[in-house]
Amino acid sequence: MSLVVMKFGGSSVADADSVKRVARRIVDNKKAGHDVCVVVSAMGDTTDDLVDLAGEISPVPPARELDMLLTAGERISMAVMAMAIANLGFSAKSFTGSQAGIITDGDHGKARILDVTPRRVRKAMDEGHIAIVAGFQGVSQDTKEITTLGRGGSDTTAVALAAALDADVCEIYSDVDGVFTADPRIVPSARKLDRISSEEMLEMAANGAKILMLRCVEYARRQQLPIHVRSSFSSKEGTLVIDPPEGEDVEASLISGVAHDRSQAKITIVGVPDHPGKAAEIFEALSQAGVNIDMIVQNVSAVDTGLTDISFTLPKVEARQAAQFLDRVQDKVGFRSMLFDDQIGKLSLIGAGMKSNPGVSATFFNALGSAGVNIEMISTSEIRISVICRDDQLDEAVRSVHTAFGLDTVSGEAVVYGGTGR
Amino acid sequence: MSLVVMKFGGSSVADADSVKRVARRIVDNKKAGHDVCVVVSAMGDTTDDLVDLAGEISPVPPARELDMLLTAGERISMAVMAMAIANLGFSAKSFTGSQAGIITDGDHGKARILDVTPRRVRKAMDEGHIAIVAGFQGVSQDTKEITTLGRGGSDTTAVALAAALDADVCEIYSDVDGVFTADPRIVPSARKLDRISSEEMLEMAANGAKILMLRCVEYARRQQLPIHVRSSFSSKEGTLVIDPPEGEDVEASLISGVAHDRSQAKITIVGVPDHPGKAAEIFEALSQAGVNIDMIVQNVSAVDTGLTDISFTLPKVEARQAAQFLDRVQDKVGFRSMLFDDQIGKLSLIGAGMKSNPGVSATFFNALGSAGVNIEMISTSEIRISVICRDDQLDEAVRSVHTAFGLDTVSGEAVVYGGTGR
Repeated sequence: MSLVVMKFGGSSVADADSVKRVARRIVDNKKAGHDVCVVVSAMGDTTDDLVDLAGEISPVPPARELDMLLTAGERISMAVMAMAIANLGFSAKSFTGSQAGIITDGDHGKARILDVTPRRVRKAMDEGHIAIVAGFQGVSQDTKEITTLGRGGSDTTAVALAAALDADVCEIYSDVDGVFTADPRIVPSARKLDRISSEEMLEMAANGAKILMLRCVEYARRQQLPIHVRSSFSSKEGTLVIDPPEGEDVEASLISGVAHDRSQAKITIVGVPDHPGKAAEIFEALSQAGVNIDMIVQNVSAVDTGLTDISFTLPKVEARQAAQFLDRVQDKVGFRSMLFDDQIGKLSLIGAGMKSNPGVSATFFNALGSAGVNIEMISTSEIRISVICRDDQLDEAVRSVHTAFGLDTVSGEAVVYGGTGR
Repeated sequence: MSLVVMKFGGSSVADADSVKRVARRIVDNKKAGHDVCVVVSAMGDTTDDLVDLAGEISPVPPARELDMLLTAGERISMAVMAMAIANLGFSAKSFTGSQAGIITDGDHGKARILDVTPRRVRKAMDEGHIAIVAGFQGVSQDTKEITTLGRGGSDTTAVALAAALDADVCEIYSDVDGVFTADPRIVPSARKLDRISSEEMLEMAANGAKILMLRCVEYARRQQLPIHVRSSFSSKEGTLVIDPPEGEDVEASLISGVAHDRSQAKITIVGVPDHPGKAAEIFEALSQAGVNIDMIVQNVSAVDTGLTDISFTLPKVEARQAAQFLDRVQDKVGFRSMLFDDQIGKLSLIGAGMKSNPGVSATFFNALGSAGVNIEMISTSEIRISVICRDDQLDEAVRSVHTAFGLDTVSGEAVVYGGTGR
C-alpha cells in the first residue's frame, strides 16, 4: 500500500459538478488501496472574488486580515470536497492549514513553510479516512496567526505535505494533460513529455512555464519527491518530474523544451557614470524596493563620454515600485534618464544535454535569425539560453526554435518541454 | 473607561457599504474611549448560499464538514470588518471562534458553549486594537474540531464573550429599533419598549419573538449581563433588557407585550386508553425522537369508552419525525389514530404584573371572544397566558389583545413588548 497526495487547482473544483467528478477520482485511488491525502485550492474564481470584496472595502487592506479573508476560499472547497466523498460512501475529514500542521513564518501574503507536522492528517488516514487539506494556507510559528503562501501556494502545500508524510508521489492535477515541449496554444504540434528532470523543470518554471510554480519544484527537488503533473479531466498519464536514480547512467536529452514569458518589462538606465560601485548603487536601491531582477545587460561604455547604459528585466507588476526607488537615487548615482519598455517577450531554450553540446547556441540563434527575430538581451545558464525580443515576435520565435530542434515532429527523438495550457 | 461588546447580524453587514457604515459606528464607540469587542454574523445571505452549495453536493452532508463550510461565512465578514476599520485609521484584529477561545461541546451544528477563554481578544484590546470575533462558531473541548452554535448562535457568542470579558453591556444590533409591544407588521401602532426584564424577555423569546434567541437571553440572565437591543440603521436608543437591582422595589408593569408564533403544528392522538402511564409512553417516544413539545392538553375521558384524546404542539419542522416515532408505538400504547394540523397560530400575553393581578385573564379572553377568535388550547405560566387558535385568526387576535390592554395608545401607561420586524 502506498500513500498518494493529490492536489486539485481551482479550475478542477470550479463548481459542484466538478467537485463531484474530482471526488470520484479521489475515491478510485482509495479503492485501489492507497492512503490518500488531498490538497485543494479555492473553487474557481473564489479567491479573485474575495480580493475584489477586500478592494471594495479598503484600497490597502491589512495583510493579516487579507490572509484571514482569503483562507475562507480553501475552507469552502475542502469542506464540500469532504461532503462529496462522503456522498460516495467513503469517509473524509477536512483540515485547515493550521490543523494540518503547515507551520510558516509570519510574512502575511507570502509566508514560507518552516515545518510540517501533519499529526491529525496522519491519524485520519490511519483511521481509514481520506484527508482533505486546504492549500495555500498555514499558521505562523511564533504568533499563531493565519498566513497564506502566495501565488502557487497550494502546489507548495501539496509537495510539503507529501514530503512530511513520506508520500510515494505528489500528483498535481490541473486542466492540462502535463508538461509540453512548448505552450500548445502557440505551438499546436507541441508534445506532452512523459518525464522531465527536476533541474529542467526548475528552469522551465523560472522562465515562464506556469504549470508548476518555482517554489513547489524547488521543494520537491530538495526532498527528492516525484511530482506527477496530470489533468483532472482525463485519466491519461501526465508528466513525471523525477530525477534518474543516483549512479544510474542516463544520457541527458539534448533539449527539453521551449518556455516563454510575457510577464516581464525592461528598464534601461541611460548615462550611468562608468565608475566602480555605480551598478551596486542601482541594484542596492532595487533590492530595497523588493524588486526581483531577472536579466541584466551592461554595454561597454562609450570612450568619449565615460558613460554607459544598464538594462534589466523585472516583473511588470513590480515596475512602478522599481521606478519610484530609482528616481530617489538618480542624483546620487548620477545617471541621465530612465527608459521603460513593457512590450518585450522572453524565450528560453532548456535542456540538460546543453552542458556537453556546444552546437546548441548556433542552431538556436540561426533559428531566430531566419525568423527575422531581433535579439535585445541574452542570458544563459548551464542548461538554458534565454533571449529578450519584441513581444509581437515572441510566438513566431517560439515556433522557429521548437521546429529547429526537431521538437514538433512526432518521430523527433528529443524529449522536451514547453509552456502550458494555462 | 468601559468595555462594550457590539454584535452585528447579517442584515447589518450585507454588503461592502453596510460594512463601512457599521465600521464608522464601531469607531465612534472606540473614539468615545471604550474598549470595543465586535461580534459579526456572516454577510447577508452568505450562510444560506453555503447551505445551498452543500445541498448541491450531498443531500446529507456530514455535520463536521457542514460546520467547517459554514464557518467560512463569519471568517469573511470579520476580516472585511477589520479592513473597513483599518481604512478609518483605527487598528482592528479579527479572531475566529477558536482563536477567541469559544470552547464548546462536540455537537456539530448545535454546539453549546462550555467555556470562554478570550485571552487573545483581551490582549488585542489591551494593546489598543478593536477586536472582531466571528459569531456562531467555536472549537470543541476534547477533539479541537470546528463547531457551530446553531440558530441565533452569533447572539450567544456575543453574550458569552461579554460575560467572559466582564463587559458593561452587550449591544445587539439588527435592522429593527428594539423590542416592541407587538410585531409592528401586524400591529402598526405597536410601541418600542425602553426597558424589559430578562424574565419577560425570556417568555417573549420562547413564545415567538424573534429579535433575541432564547439561549442568548438565558445566558445573559444567568450572567446578569444587560443587553441593549438596537438598530444598526439609526443612532436611537433601543431596548434595554435588564433586571432592576436586587432589593430595589420596582412595581412590575402589568403587561409587557403580545408575542405570536406561526412556527408550530398540532398533533392530536385520538382514542388513548385512559390508564396510568399511557401519556408517559407517548411522550417517552417523542423524547427519543428529539422533539420539543410545547403545549399539551388532555381532555377528560368519555365515560362510556374509557378512551381520551391528547393534543400537543411542536415545531412544524419536527412534526414528520414525531409522527414516525408515534407510528412505531401505536400498537403498544393502543391509541386509535393521529391527527395532524399545521394551520394553527399561537398568541402569548406576557407581563410580570400578571402574578398579582387576577383580572388579566378575564380581559384577555373577553378580547379574544369579541374578535370572534375560537380558542383551541390554553397554557399559562406565572407571567404568561398563551392560546392556540386558527392561523388565519392570529393577526386579528393579536390586534384585539394589544388594544384591550391599552398597549397601542401613545398615552397608555403599560410598558410593554411584542414581536419583531424580522
